[in-house]
Amino acid sequence: MLHRTKYTLGLDFGTNSARALLVDAADGREISAAVWNYAGGEQGIILDRRDANLARQRPDDYMEGIVRTVQAVLRSARRQSSQFAASAVIGIGVDTTGSTPLPIDRHCRPLAAHQAYARNPHAMAWLWKDHTAHAEAAEITARAARRRPEYLARCGGIYSSEWFWAKLLHCRRVAPAVFQAAHTWVEIADWIPAMLAGISNPAEIRRGICAAGHKAMFHAAWGGYPERAWLHQLDPELARIRDTLPAKAYTAADRAGTLAPAWAKRLGLPAGIPIAAGAFDAHLGAVGAGIRPGTLVKIIGTSTCDMAIEPLKRKLPDIPGLCGIVPESILPGYYGLEAGQSAVGDIFNWFVNQIAPRAGGHRELTRQAEKLGPGTSGLLALDWHNGNRTVLVDQRLTGAILGLTLHTTPAEIYRALVEATAFGARVIMERLEAYGVRIRRIVNCGGIAAKNPMVMQIYADIMNRPLEISRSAQTCALGAAMAAAVAAGKPAGGQAGFGGAVRAMTGTLPDKFRPIPAHVKTYNELFKLYRTIHDGFGRSGARRDYSAIMKTLLAIRDRTGKPPA
Amino acid sequence: MLHRTKYTLGLDFGTNSARALLVDAADGREISAAVWNYAGGEQGIILDRRDANLARQRPDDYMEGIVRTVQAVLRSARRQSSQFAASAVIGIGVDTTGSTPLPIDRHCRPLAAHQAYARNPHAMAWLWKDHTAHAEAAEITARAARRRPEYLARCGGIYSSEWFWAKLLHCRRVAPAVFQAAHTWVEIADWIPAMLAGISNPAEIRRGICAAGHKAMFHAAWGGYPERAWLHQLDPELARIRDTLPAKAYTAADRAGTLAPAWAKRLGLPAGIPIAAGAFDAHLGAVGAGIRPGTLVKIIGTSTCDMAIEPLKRKLPDIPGLCGIVPESILPGYYGLEAGQSAVGDIFNWFVNQIAPRAGGHRELTRQAEKLGPGTSGLLALDWHNGNRTVLVDQRLTGAILGLTLHTTPAEIYRALVEATAFGARVIMERLEAYGVRIRRIVNCGGIAAKNPMVMQIYADIMNRPLEISRSAQTCALGAAMAAAVAAGKPAGGQAGFGGAVRAMTGTLPDKFRPIPAHVKTYNELFKLYRTIHDGFGRSGARRDYSAIMKTLLAIRDRTGKPPA
Repeated sequence: MLHRTKYTLGLDFGTNSARALLVDAADGREISAAVWNYAGGEQGIILDRRDANLARQRPDDYMEGIVRTVQAVLRSARRQSSQFAASAVIGIGVDTTGSTPLPIDRHCRPLAAHQAYARNPHAMAWLWKDHTAHAEAAEITARAARRRPEYLARCGGIYSSEWFWAKLLHCRRVAPAVFQAAHTWVEIADWIPAMLAGISNPAEIRRGICAAGHKAMFHAAWGGYPERAWLHQLDPELARIRDTLPAKAYTAADRAGTLAPAWAKRLGLPAGIPIAAGAFDAHLGAVGAGIRPGTLVKIIGTSTCDMAIEPLKRKLPDIPGLCGIVPESILPGYYGLEAGQSAVGDIFNWFVNQIAPRAGGHRELTRQAEKLGPGTSGLLALDWHNGNRTVLVDQRLTGAILGLTLHTTPAEIYRALVEATAFGARVIMERLEAYGVRIRRIVNCGGIAAKNPMVMQIYADIMNRPLEISRSAQTCALGAAMAAAVAAGKPAGGQAGFGGAVRAMTGTLPDKFRPIPAHVKTYNELFKLYRTIHDGFGRSGARRDYSAIMKTLLAIRDRTGKPPA
Repeated sequence: MLHRTKYTLGLDFGTNSARALLVDAADGREISAAVWNYAGGEQGIILDRRDANLARQRPDDYMEGIVRTVQAVLRSARRQSSQFAASAVIGIGVDTTGSTPLPIDRHCRPLAAHQAYARNPHAMAWLWKDHTAHAEAAEITARAARRRPEYLARCGGIYSSEWFWAKLLHCRRVAPAVFQAAHTWVEIADWIPAMLAGISNPAEIRRGICAAGHKAMFHAAWGGYPERAWLHQLDPELARIRDTLPAKAYTAADRAGTLAPAWAKRLGLPAGIPIAAGAFDAHLGAVGAGIRPGTLVKIIGTSTCDMAIEPLKRKLPDIPGLCGIVPESILPGYYGLEAGQSAVGDIFNWFVNQIAPRAGGHRELTRQAEKLGPGTSGLLALDWHNGNRTVLVDQRLTGAILGLTLHTTPAEIYRALVEATAFGARVIMERLEAYGVRIRRIVNCGGIAAKNPMVMQIYADIMNRPLEISRSAQTCALGAAMAAAVAAGKPAGGQAGFGGAVRAMTGTLPDKFRPIPAHVKTYNELFKLYRTIHDGFGRSGARRDYSAIMKTLLAIRDRTGKPPA
């Protein structure tokens, strides 16, 4: 009997667009992909001119994104091969941004679908980068620190304004009518699979451990979500929401349900194929990049996520400053460790677009910056233009540039900003290692890793590690498709588990970025200075002498001299 | 008998050009002015592509500058009034940059006038901003600190690479043949008047107290220039030069000589009219701006000079960090106090031309920055792009910008740089006052003071003082013309002394910049943060906690909110 190829679909809901990827469920080969930019707001985001912190999304756009992208990938697959049939698709996986909670009614419909709230941003999805809830985040942190320090221990000691409970509490305060109309709130990572599965009872939505554990203080140690009484003290309405949340959360190996007949018909897919439980883009991106014990996956884009896993049996200690350590949040059987930098490519874009637009753009600045050696500019920067996610966990930090002279050029500043983000990456890596997380390989993915070799070489030199690049350019969608393959299972033509799926379906490019010893030496010196200002500006109580910093920078500059042309 | 108007000429030798100003010797009315750009090098400066620190000038350019500008002002005066006759010019005054020492032979000819050295930069004038001698400056500082701390006490504790002995020692080391060929070295402030007076014996050159005291460690307390044995230890050749230097130095009220017949003929001026002893541009600029006890004169341009005088009888203490406190360096009978900022307009130009050239230039950035209120950007900068002259006296300091976010705009950075220079100005003012120098008025002159009201308003708000603007736009040349009037004396139609000359010949514009109380309040908070990073980065041993800085900036930003449109 002829072996018949099976396929899975990965659906990836990003900040500005939805993407579908059709892959070969046996080896991860990417058959076809399609992207659709959300129609709402500006680049898919509903903004408020009066409040730069506000960022919402229309839930309709997610639904429309499914239809448009799935239909497109199926069309494209058919065009490529007359052998292809949609009936060979054996599962669907979903990844989304997060924490992006959505208020829904008792039939799982978004409040925004009700006419009364159609144009009310508070009734839409609260996009991960919405920072309106910073006061509420501080309040939650303070209250947890006093009464329930364990709630904070695994999220770096500080609850973020980007996260579930802070956003709910803020909505309760600024839009109480919307809040009362909501039966419950659900991460879109959980809501979208439930929609595909035709679930209309909120109690039946399977909530992923990834979102619950990293953003909503869910932990098996205290029986799931935070205790009712504690939430009640924050606000009685939060306790009401707590009552709608289930006791159990699901891993990426679990199913959210099976494809509902109505959706199957609309998409042209077989009804009843499994839908994997949803997870965040970074987590499934790490899976698509080939995460395994000993491998650090760095997703480097406008911001950066650093992901690692450690066996559950290891009894991992709390790691101070790490946003999230959650059992099984990335893969079943492992702790998922999540760190990150709040802005990386965003900082380069800011400089190129906002400050020095006549300097020639990324391409020209990269060309010039490449010719500069480490230390030759005398500059040192802090990469906190959007706060610091790891290890300081503080959104109220800002960027800095030291060492400016009347001769400082845009290319020197550009390179200093790249270096600053690499120093920040090294701080994260060293923190992980200091707490026993072994890092034998580093696999990079995301737009910058794929596109800018200068940035990757500087990262290799500053981290003093060979850096590998993921073979796939769309690791998040690939990870979602891998989850679909696992959800489908081996007998259906999928994968028996994630270990095998990672081995079979992922890989890295043959060329690595290897550290250049002379660069490593200079960057080690500069990193000491970076640590001094990092700790000095970032941490209360650090009393250090800054008086040597500028002079050491100049001494290094004088010594490293003119770079090779 | 009809009163006949008398005139004096002020000759001003700047960094890029020579200027002549013809004024009414009774009231300072400016009759005519002329400028000539030096012909040599780039914008009048001889550079070396291999060494960015090198900056020299052709002494020929000074001589040609005299001829061209004096002839031009006389022509212009004649065109304006048929009554004008060059015979009514009763004196000449000279101001120059400094320390700008020139090696000369035993007939007072510049070495550069000898064919053998005509193209040798070491045989030319060593322009004030030449920084080739930084190692020698450090050596002189170290040796003085050990053996002769009093030599440093009045120049801020650190001898500068811009100054006389450092430049001589550097020349001795890098161009020993030039050094040996030099009979002596002389500041161009002293050499140009001597040339006009036809002096050909170096021993007859009258050296001004201004250059000697501020740049060459000359002080009556130790009998003039530094002792021979101490210089001999630095290098025996310096002791040889020491032997050519006179025991006495002259004030601005003294004559350098009288106009030589050959020059009188060439210029069309009366032979024998007095030539005032030369002085530095900043010092005579302070005179032209109306300096008197209790008045701080700020000359704000690419860099800034802050000048004050205190009666000699006051027994002024050493003021730490003040570059120069020299008896009679500005006016006879008073200590001359000189402070300054190494870069002010140069920092704004760097940002506008080098970093953000598409932001619209000074005019557009000023228009936007004007609309921002104090504190609204969350930015804080250090104005050390060219080192710090006062009060840290350290050329190895560099600029910095803190508080950057992904929303930071060029106009916000522009304003933060202006504010940084104003904070630097306040540090200088507070240091003077802390040591008993009373400041009742602040008179501003220089290009920026005259042209940019936003900058002046920010200075008024940050210094919390009303700021006056000098009536004359060319205070240096006016000060030189005033020195000429005093050298000519009352009977000749000039002035009896500087006190009267300042009252009669200077003034300020009617409109003052007055501090706005709401701005003062915010800027007082920001100034505290500036002091913290100023001391922390600028001073060894200052151990301060930096962790509150970024958050305080954000709190101030949040509080000050959106600026009025």
